[in-house]
Amino acid sequence: MVKQERAARTRQALIEAAAAVFAQEGFAAASLSTISRQAGVSNGALHFHFASKNALADAVEAQACQRLARITASVPARPGPLLQQVIDATHALMDALAADIVLRGAFALACEPTRARQGSPHTHWQRWLEDTLRRAEAHGALARGVRAADAARTLTAATVGFAVLGADDPSWLARTRTTALWTTLLPGLAPRHDLPRLRSTGSHPATPHHPHPRP
Amino acid sequence: MVKQERAARTRQALIEAAAAVFAQEGFAAASLSTISRQAGVSNGALHFHFASKNALADAVEAQACQRLARITASVPARPGPLLQQVIDATHALMDALAADIVLRGAFALACEPTRARQGSPHTHWQRWLEDTLRRAEAHGALARGVRAADAARTLTAATVGFAVLGADDPSWLARTRTTALWTTLLPGLAPRHDLPRLRSTGSHPATPHHPHPRP
Repeated sequence: MVKQERAARTRQALIEAAAAVFAQEGFAAASLSTISRQAGVSNGALHFHFASKNALADAVEAQACQRLARITASVPARPGPLLQQVIDATHALMDALAADIVLRGAFALACEPTRARQGSPHTHWQRWLEDTLRRAEAHGALARGVRAADAARTLTAATVGFAVLGADDPSWLARTRTTALWTTLLPGLAPRHDLPRLRSTGSHPATPHHPHPRP
Repeated sequence: MVKQERAARTRQALIEAAAAVFAQEGFAAASLSTISRQAGVSNGALHFHFASKNALADAVEAQACQRLARITASVPARPGPLLQQVIDATHALMDALAADIVLRGAFALACEPTRARQGSPHTHWQRWLEDTLRRAEAHGALARGVRAADAARTLTAATVGFAVLGADDPSWLARTRTTALWTTLLPGLAPRHDLPRLRSTGSHPATPHHPHPRP
């Protein structure tokens, strides 16, 4: 293995270990030596890659934002109501939170009062929701009187709530919960004529992000 | 001032200071000496009242649960749709979160991975929502096909999300946000014939918990 490749692997192992420790113990309680031990590297290697715990948290958030961007980009712009894209992205995000420790660690950082909100995945998620719902509004694909920004905030708050509660009790991240959320939300968000076409279960009941792949 | 009264005041000052420090710095980062300094008492006085940081956090949560119980008990059982009680309680809770540091500190502890969920105010809130929505279901005051438990979980997640995001940006706790949440939720939760009678602004647009009382 060339030196550069080995360095990249060590860096990635540190990011994943940090995410796991942030999710399990919280950012403030997380110790750098627990992180390096969990990554199977020396303290020196950690300090070579990351100057501080904040730098590690920045890297966890940056990688989570990339994965979130892949999730939202992978939702196909299919013909039919635009809201289906938002439903599908919510399912994909919850599946990913259940399966992906980097995303879970980054969402756990949302609770850390000393960390800036700028680079956090839930800020990116809220922006994507606002953009997509604004397009839906412009195309008449939101219920009359619903403002895209309000709908985006309701969805952001619910998602952050599911992520925080799911950190402790993974059943919050189950597909049935996300479906129940959308069953509750759809009649308020969608124009009545779109309701029969919208599926709160998502277009793809089994996605590649599903935490329990069948054998 | 009798000795007992002074002890009760010191204890209360410590609970409020602890809640403020938990909300500002998080539980793990909070130091006992910051808390005693902020309460204006000695470290010795803190240790006389509370054996540990966990004991302080327990006291913050217990007091928050009492205040939450007062909020839900103060929502009058008035004639009309039962969901109005849930709307009114949500507004009262968000107003109280904006104004009351003990509630805010206790909701901040919801993010602390090492704390048990049993005594946390959001567990009590979820239970109250489940009970009240189950009664609504039994009285035909929920939309057909909506399960009380699902509606309670959606509302719990949204509330926890608003509390976490509001810790950083108080605008999340504004009345207009809670009203927008309910405007989005009502068409999915309420039977159609109840919609004209339900007010997403709450029955009492100005409650005693309002954070900015007018002079």
